[in-house]
Amino acid sequence: MVRPRNELTATEIVAGIGSGQFTAEAVMRACLDRIETREPEVAAWTYLNPDQALASARQFDRDGKGGPIGGVPFGIKDIIDTADMPTEWGSPIHKGRQAGRDAACVALSRKAGGLLLGKAVTTELANRRVGPTRNPHDVTRTPGGSSSGSAAAVADFMVPLAIGTQTTGSTIRPSSFCGIVGYRPTWGEHRLHGVMEASGSLDTLGICARSVDDVALYRDVLLGIEPQPIPETSVPPRIGFCRTHIWPKVASSTQALVEDAAQTLAKNGATIIDAELPDEFAELTDAHRWISSFEFVRTFTWEIENHRDRIGDGILANRIADGLAGSFDRYIEKWSLAERLRLKMDSLWQDCDVLMTPGATDEAPVGWDAFAGADLYKMWTALHVPAITLPVFRGPTGMPIGLQFFARRHADRTLFAHARWAHRVLG
Amino acid sequence: MVRPRNELTATEIVAGIGSGQFTAEAVMRACLDRIETREPEVAAWTYLNPDQALASARQFDRDGKGGPIGGVPFGIKDIIDTADMPTEWGSPIHKGRQAGRDAACVALSRKAGGLLLGKAVTTELANRRVGPTRNPHDVTRTPGGSSSGSAAAVADFMVPLAIGTQTTGSTIRPSSFCGIVGYRPTWGEHRLHGVMEASGSLDTLGICARSVDDVALYRDVLLGIEPQPIPETSVPPRIGFCRTHIWPKVASSTQALVEDAAQTLAKNGATIIDAELPDEFAELTDAHRWISSFEFVRTFTWEIENHRDRIGDGILANRIADGLAGSFDRYIEKWSLAERLRLKMDSLWQDCDVLMTPGATDEAPVGWDAFAGADLYKMWTALHVPAITLPVFRGPTGMPIGLQFFARRHADRTLFAHARWAHRVLG
Repeated sequence: MVRPRNELTATEIVAGIGSGQFTAEAVMRACLDRIETREPEVAAWTYLNPDQALASARQFDRDGKGGPIGGVPFGIKDIIDTADMPTEWGSPIHKGRQAGRDAACVALSRKAGGLLLGKAVTTELANRRVGPTRNPHDVTRTPGGSSSGSAAAVADFMVPLAIGTQTTGSTIRPSSFCGIVGYRPTWGEHRLHGVMEASGSLDTLGICARSVDDVALYRDVLLGIEPQPIPETSVPPRIGFCRTHIWPKVASSTQALVEDAAQTLAKNGATIIDAELPDEFAELTDAHRWISSFEFVRTFTWEIENHRDRIGDGILANRIADGLAGSFDRYIEKWSLAERLRLKMDSLWQDCDVLMTPGATDEAPVGWDAFAGADLYKMWTALHVPAITLPVFRGPTGMPIGLQFFARRHADRTLFAHARWAHRVLG
Repeated sequence: MVRPRNELTATEIVAGIGSGQFTAEAVMRACLDRIETREPEVAAWTYLNPDQALASARQFDRDGKGGPIGGVPFGIKDIIDTADMPTEWGSPIHKGRQAGRDAACVALSRKAGGLLLGKAVTTELANRRVGPTRNPHDVTRTPGGSSSGSAAAVADFMVPLAIGTQTTGSTIRPSSFCGIVGYRPTWGEHRLHGVMEASGSLDTLGICARSVDDVALYRDVLLGIEPQPIPETSVPPRIGFCRTHIWPKVASSTQALVEDAAQTLAKNGATIIDAELPDEFAELTDAHRWISSFEFVRTFTWEIENHRDRIGDGILANRIADGLAGSFDRYIEKWSLAERLRLKMDSLWQDCDVLMTPGATDEAPVGWDAFAGADLYKMWTALHVPAITLPVFRGPTGMPIGLQFFARRHADRTLFAHARWAHRVLG
């Protein structure tokens, strides 16, 4: 039986088009058909233009240009600028806003042959107020935020690749909740021009995909470099099981899943080490709060001064209240702590190739709490290390939960190699 | 004799309006009158709307709102977004572009009572191709770039404050060439949302002003914090005279001016130390090139892919050629070197409060070479340390040259304190 084109990975699509098995138009049509069927329930998209998407696919087929993601449809979080679609940041303040150019990540995707399908739902300003998106595995549940639409669309086979962003856990969490591979790169490697800033010293792009190979491919495309295959690992990895001070906040059912996975990985040859970080790393949870809110409230001065009544209460009561309360001295103190611990972290990888922790504290909750379990992510995001979550668990009610790995800063390719090994082992 | 209002500093304007000596409208009118007289020769502005500026001043006078820069006209480099004016990046590609919102730095200025006067000329994409601006001290000469209009407008008494940016020497150089106080803050402290990115890991805002006090005031406004006066120094500073590996590229006449200044400062009580940085710091000159070009070419993928024919030859032959030639491995290697040396630099301030070097290698050249002496700035900018240039020298033909000071990262207020002391001594 032929798999529906919309269920193929990006890597498979590139191969299929390259070998003449099918056209980019056929893939785009399959994605659009899936969206037509499912979008009323999932609500992953804030802007779609099927005619425009199909026209770009036909053009691609005519030109025969190829490219590393040649003919692959992709979606982007609606805080990312595009020349030919509105970019609204999930905010009524920016309704209909036209950026007039493509963000760096969009232009790099198009240069590599990618076909922009549409803009995916973001929570308001990539923060608290949620959009309409629902979890494709159970539409009574949240898909997670803030990259809600990006994760849901990839999970629901509407598109094989989507770009999100992460300032706390905004790519890893929805990827875990929706049961896909989610990746947060080493901070600073990808250009963010044309992407709405939330908190510049923490923001990165995020990639939502359905395989580790796709993540690795798209990461290189977004770096503007020639994609290279993930290296094969010669020996199973040394994995630091890193529970951290957040472990008590992880659901016991999730704890059990990760403990089990550790045993399975060990049985398959991995070395599992109980990895404990020095105590002071726990301070980064609080540091993340003060860094992110200090920056957020300044970034959005225009919105706050001119359109306060159109900003959600959740942001006003949290990020904005914190940001107005936090002093500059505290900001610099926390920023400097984070910088120092990043350097210290670089020296802590002698015994481990990767570190391991859950991708979320629990299954996606019923209802609209898109930001459940936020404390899990803060320390890691402040450390600027790359993270990937793999969809290998099912929770008590059958909803997906991810297993998360980290590597040393700039060792993203090492992370992919070991994550792919773990994904093969855990299925 | 009453000094013309357009020649007052921001600090003087705030005091004068506050005490009822004059109105914001009178100040704005004086600035606009100056512009009307001088703009045909200096060409500092790319967008002016005198009616809009006057209306905002009258509104300010009616509201009586005050604020740290209440009633002070300011200009901004035309790579900074505004809700009510076009933002064109010095590029024909972006002619007439409307951003639809204010950049963080503009919104913070307005929140503090500042009155936006207009958009100042930038070189193309804050890079090679120069705009029409001429040096107000001698219109046959360049004002320096890339913040050409911001520096020229402040120097020519068209406006007391202007925002520029710096990725190499783009605020310090034009400030030195035009004879004003120019300041480049510690990297990372100010939000850059709404400011065109050139090379994100090096970009900062820059401030052009006519006094150190004004720079300190505006820095706090742009940080979104309550401005604090510069602390008085209790003893003269310990100044590291830091010639660096670039010294042979400094004109001998400039070398002599700085050597003389060192003697004068010593006579007035400063401790002058011959400061030598470890050899490896010289590698940052080359590192700056590869970091900035790798980032630049990716940031501008949309422009390069869609409008290559409207990009200047100078950028294509330099930044873009370098950026396409540079590998990712080299980029990460240079980025990591810069990060390591920043931390090392933090430990090198035991003997010195500030370091001292020229603000430019020479006077502004005759003609259009807006980027003369670029190597002087690369290491310092890559180190992320704050810099200030003071207009204390005249070169062989009578053109201004600045004296530049640096301090430890995040010690910008210390820098101001010692720079103000030096400015008083050197006149």
